[in-house]
Amino acid sequence: MTGRPPSSDLDRRYMAAAIRLARLNEGRTGANPSVATLLVRDFGQGPVIIGSGVTALGGRPHAEPQALAEAGERARGATAYVTLEPCAHHGRTAPCADALVSAGVARVVGAAGDPDPRVCGRGYEILRRAGIEVEEGVLADNAARDLAGYLTRRTKNRLHVTLKLALSADGLMGLRGTGQVALTGEIANRQVHLMRAASDIILIGSGTALADDPALTCRLPGLEDRSPIRLVLDDALRLDPASQLAASARRTPLWIASSAPPDADKRPSLAALGAEFIAAEPLEGKLALPELLEDLAARGLSTLFVEGGAAVARSFLDEDLVDRLVLMTAPQKLADIAAGEGIVAPLTRESVPARFKPLRTAWYGPDRMDSFERQN
Amino acid sequence: MTGRPPSSDLDRRYMAAAIRLARLNEGRTGANPSVATLLVRDFGQGPVIIGSGVTALGGRPHAEPQALAEAGERARGATAYVTLEPCAHHGRTAPCADALVSAGVARVVGAAGDPDPRVCGRGYEILRRAGIEVEEGVLADNAARDLAGYLTRRTKNRLHVTLKLALSADGLMGLRGTGQVALTGEIANRQVHLMRAASDIILIGSGTALADDPALTCRLPGLEDRSPIRLVLDDALRLDPASQLAASARRTPLWIASSAPPDADKRPSLAALGAEFIAAEPLEGKLALPELLEDLAARGLSTLFVEGGAAVARSFLDEDLVDRLVLMTAPQKLADIAAGEGIVAPLTRESVPARFKPLRTAWYGPDRMDSFERQN
Repeated sequence: MTGRPPSSDLDRRYMAAAIRLARLNEGRTGANPSVATLLVRDFGQGPVIIGSGVTALGGRPHAEPQALAEAGERARGATAYVTLEPCAHHGRTAPCADALVSAGVARVVGAAGDPDPRVCGRGYEILRRAGIEVEEGVLADNAARDLAGYLTRRTKNRLHVTLKLALSADGLMGLRGTGQVALTGEIANRQVHLMRAASDIILIGSGTALADDPALTCRLPGLEDRSPIRLVLDDALRLDPASQLAASARRTPLWIASSAPPDADKRPSLAALGAEFIAAEPLEGKLALPELLEDLAARGLSTLFVEGGAAVARSFLDEDLVDRLVLMTAPQKLADIAAGEGIVAPLTRESVPARFKPLRTAWYGPDRMDSFERQN
Repeated sequence: MTGRPPSSDLDRRYMAAAIRLARLNEGRTGANPSVATLLVRDFGQGPVIIGSGVTALGGRPHAEPQALAEAGERARGATAYVTLEPCAHHGRTAPCADALVSAGVARVVGAAGDPDPRVCGRGYEILRRAGIEVEEGVLADNAARDLAGYLTRRTKNRLHVTLKLALSADGLMGLRGTGQVALTGEIANRQVHLMRAASDIILIGSGTALADDPALTCRLPGLEDRSPIRLVLDDALRLDPASQLAASARRTPLWIASSAPPDADKRPSLAALGAEFIAAEPLEGKLALPELLEDLAARGLSTLFVEGGAAVARSFLDEDLVDRLVLMTAPQKLADIAAGEGIVAPLTRESVPARFKPLRTAWYGPDRMDSFERQN
């Protein structure tokens, strides 16, 4: 007897598992989103997973053919859980929607829809026309949250922006003129490294690069190769060729956004170290951010993780370019751990603008994490 | 007295000049197309160029604001020649269509339209609504030919492909089992280097990489920094880490399209030399080309220059992925210069399929160049 999972509770459970699986390759699938497929069938003793797939590193193959290959002949009559609508456009290989049809899958449960105009609704339509039962939108919000980078690029033609701020209890980000002040603890810092690993690009301003000399890599054991591109907003080319960022440019890509011409001071020496220059438009002493985010999206990148400092954070907030906000708040007041002029954060937990909806609160050791999502 | 160029002959002449100017940064403007603007005004003694701009390296700033900045106040009442419809979407800086309006330009002559859904017709509409006289489509085909990469990416979501074949008079490409046979002369070879410089990517198969050990760089004096990305189709990872391609990966990007997993033999050593791996789907012993071209386009790349060998050329032709065909035919028969089993070219000048329309014929010293464009 072949059967299908009977209840929508079961559907949500398998979809949640598929969404977790999709996170595996987040930030590592190039211009393709990291998507997962689970194939489930009931041979009479309750449902079992007979095949699973997640978009391969670099974006190919897609999740569906991998799950179908694992299941083989047993895919016939199975239910497929897909975190994103199966692709419907033709390359030389069959689109994933056709692959599910050919394999004889009986039912497809989908989470997010694909806004790609070549797919949008057509993936599900191919399945329905072939007589497959389709249920759309199961845990759609959860899946869309993980796919936010891809969806933002497709619908708004720009990167999805997460702004992270680390604050003291009195709403300060550090001390003016000195280097980094360690505000948050080890657990929070590791979480930040995890967030880096799931992003395509980390961005800081040249002020932070000069003050802190950060490496901005993911240094979690086993995830060292997951460091994203590091992008410095540096119109005036202040970045030091002896900085950690420049010195590691051969191992982890370093991009510099600047309007400086190719023969500008320092530019040849930074380029020789492996830094890549991104053309940007100067505007009122800053760089035009919307155009920059659009150009980066045109390169197939999807997610940007903004790490500061205060001026850069303020620019992104002022231009309403922040999609997700992560506030790490330490239990101490800055005044209690260091002396000097504090750098005031552009916002604190209490002053988050109303357009941001609270998403999650968690405690990382002594530090509190609050995340927010912009409503739009 | 301010005036405007009176005749459409003059329009075509200035547009031809703008199209030539746009070629300056071809292949070096990232995901933005290389576009030019000329501002022309008649102060009573015949028209003069008062401002010119071409998309800056990396894609920003666009051509129009540069030309307007050069012209300053004199732009008021001028005619603007634009090789592509001015952009209409908002970043933080004003779209180029608005910039032309603000500067008080009286007339805009455009060549190609922009298929970008955020622009498509809207750029011209903004101008017309502001009372500017607009003439579209002047030398549109010529401009579109130079913009073919950008237009193909926007309309077909894949790279624009130029296939170059160098043939002997008897339709052979080389000798099986030996390295490269020099078929064409120095002048033709320099022309090929120029074509490389105007492309985003050069592609060869691993067979050619092994047989010829080419560098595939642009080695024309002054254009050494114009070498595009070199992409090798190498599913089986046959490329030698001691090859010229691998050895120069730090200076000129080397990408390898392969379905090999990250820990596959040779992959770590090639990666350590700076080679980047592009995920590709294996299919019947080859790699799926349409998906590859689509993924590369999603990274913002536009033009691919396929340099061989015969098997790779045949794959692109068989899958109807060739947009432009360049045949370099040497005056000698291969049999007269070398002995061995000849490699038969997938086509010669006489057997070009009817879907390709002859574009140009030129003589590069003793060698004949024929180019063709696919009709679609």
